[in-house]
Amino acid sequence: MSQTIGTQSIQFDQAPYILGSASIVGTKEGEGPLGELFDLVGEDDKFGEDTWEEAESTLQKEAASMAIGKAGISNEDIRYIFGGDLLGQNIATTFGLMELNIPLFGLYGACSTAGESLALGAMAVAGGYGDQVLAVTSSHFASAEKQFRFPLEYANQRPLSATWTVTGSGAFVLGKKRSKLRITGITPGKVVDYGIKDSMNMGAAMAPAACNTIRQNMIDFNRKPEDYDKIVTGDLGKVGQEILFDLLKQKGFDISKVHMDCGIEIFDSETQNTNAGGSGCGCSAVTLSAYILPKLETGAWKRVLFVPTGALLSTVSFNEGQSVPGIAHGVVIEHAG
Amino acid sequence: MSQTIGTQSIQFDQAPYILGSASIVGTKEGEGPLGELFDLVGEDDKFGEDTWEEAESTLQKEAASMAIGKAGISNEDIRYIFGGDLLGQNIATTFGLMELNIPLFGLYGACSTAGESLALGAMAVAGGYGDQVLAVTSSHFASAEKQFRFPLEYANQRPLSATWTVTGSGAFVLGKKRSKLRITGITPGKVVDYGIKDSMNMGAAMAPAACNTIRQNMIDFNRKPEDYDKIVTGDLGKVGQEILFDLLKQKGFDISKVHMDCGIEIFDSETQNTNAGGSGCGCSAVTLSAYILPKLETGAWKRVLFVPTGALLSTVSFNEGQSVPGIAHGVVIEHAG
Repeated sequence: MSQTIGTQSIQFDQAPYILGSASIVGTKEGEGPLGELFDLVGEDDKFGEDTWEEAESTLQKEAASMAIGKAGISNEDIRYIFGGDLLGQNIATTFGLMELNIPLFGLYGACSTAGESLALGAMAVAGGYGDQVLAVTSSHFASAEKQFRFPLEYANQRPLSATWTVTGSGAFVLGKKRSKLRITGITPGKVVDYGIKDSMNMGAAMAPAACNTIRQNMIDFNRKPEDYDKIVTGDLGKVGQEILFDLLKQKGFDISKVHMDCGIEIFDSETQNTNAGGSGCGCSAVTLSAYILPKLETGAWKRVLFVPTGALLSTVSFNEGQSVPGIAHGVVIEHAG
Repeated sequence: MSQTIGTQSIQFDQAPYILGSASIVGTKEGEGPLGELFDLVGEDDKFGEDTWEEAESTLQKEAASMAIGKAGISNEDIRYIFGGDLLGQNIATTFGLMELNIPLFGLYGACSTAGESLALGAMAVAGGYGDQVLAVTSSHFASAEKQFRFPLEYANQRPLSATWTVTGSGAFVLGKKRSKLRITGITPGKVVDYGIKDSMNMGAAMAPAACNTIRQNMIDFNRKPEDYDKIVTGDLGKVGQEILFDLLKQKGFDISKVHMDCGIEIFDSETQNTNAGGSGCGCSAVTLSAYILPKLETGAWKRVLFVPTGALLSTVSFNEGQSVPGIAHGVVIEHAG
């Protein structure tokens, strides 16, 4: 019952379905181009909590509950959770999901965690390890700035290549029951290091990893870019997108006609002052739930390669002069007729 | 092909085998009671690197390579890696495993990560997602002190309930090929919070999670404590062990005759000044590889419940006044005749 394909991918014999999903975002995301599509836009980015970290936990908890509700099931029907966030020691996830009282696999893949959680969740359902599982990820602008850059109070200037961490959480219930959305395959990513040392230029750090995963996906599944209605990266932003196009062209793949980047879509960089675009685990997760899945559900799109991208650094690794490697996990999602 | 059992566990239809494992530790661990058993004891806790974080990465890289070698295969034969560590954003894992050029699922379960990685690795092999996968975790005393407590140079005093983070990495190749060691089931853990707020008393914070997972394992598999030759927790230490015994007795289970804690075994607290015992992802991982698996391999022990325990906190959550919840993942390992 081997389900592996090519050197790096999995094609599921019994592909799991997406039974429900939810997206909750902050005020700035609500004012962006996708604002109308999200399930819930918070009135206040603290979401009623005392700290930014607790706010992020609340985002996860609410998104998880909403996705479970939309799937028409209750907490006890979820066998396992696959969840993570950007903060050191995954504290947003720990404190956000504790009350659900469901076994938790904590994940860290930087901003690629949405892909990692969907991949592992799909593997679990297709492997017979549960009728329903939950994949959930989040990020919060203020908790991420504090963690990775400067506290907001410091009022530092941001270079044009910098991205803006999305305040948001996306949650997905995967299961065996039929729906119109199916995860048919995955291409888990490798850590790829091009030696980028600028933590304000994450797009450049992540593009080589995205290139690696997208290329391998097409080789493993024997597909061309046109076999996907969209190839969707997480948060490369405008700088990273150009690099990705160049790198893939060198490998013989032109994805420019079908490419979309969640970080570019989620904000209007002209009016919202977000420079290169949005980023964070939440960026790709909420865009998937609010914008991509509905297109697949109606059949407007038939098949999408969803490739969240992560920059693997901490303030310690950065300050010690290490490069910023990237990672990207690919998830093939199809319209189920 | 449901492989679930009870409310929280998995019993594998085709249980994967442990094909090879390796343990590498620092000088203090080498001087402890298990010193003779480890595959490699470093002469210098920096392992030839410039920083503690790079030293920890090197530990992981070497342990991974050694385990792969002992399994009689090469890097290309490993389909996926399941790995993690204690540092913010998993940097020891990222920089340690990058060169292996194998797709990586980054995990965070605090000191329970050894259990999480074995659980997910076993699920992957048993699900048909690869002939061989690698589970690897690490911790390093100096990088962990810097991350969670005080830099070594600060020379702070340590309370008696404090544990000593183990410098070490354990790596495990799981696969389909027969060996004398089999992972027959798992009980993934829930986040359990008893409201402990003392980050210097991790044992008390983690004991309720260990209780929860051990109890559920016995209910799900319909077993008594005596059905295991050993029930092995990760790093509760002496304080946490007593709490665990009390909590499980209240639930009707007396595990005192079969219990062992890796944190208690790895150091001689009388002569090594380690207070409550060892801790860290590496503690349970190296003890499993060096001490527990050989007992199972020879058949001296037939069945072990391995339950690494994690304390879910960061300096941010702690300083914001949050409690320290725990998590514990159970892995059933058996002698295969």
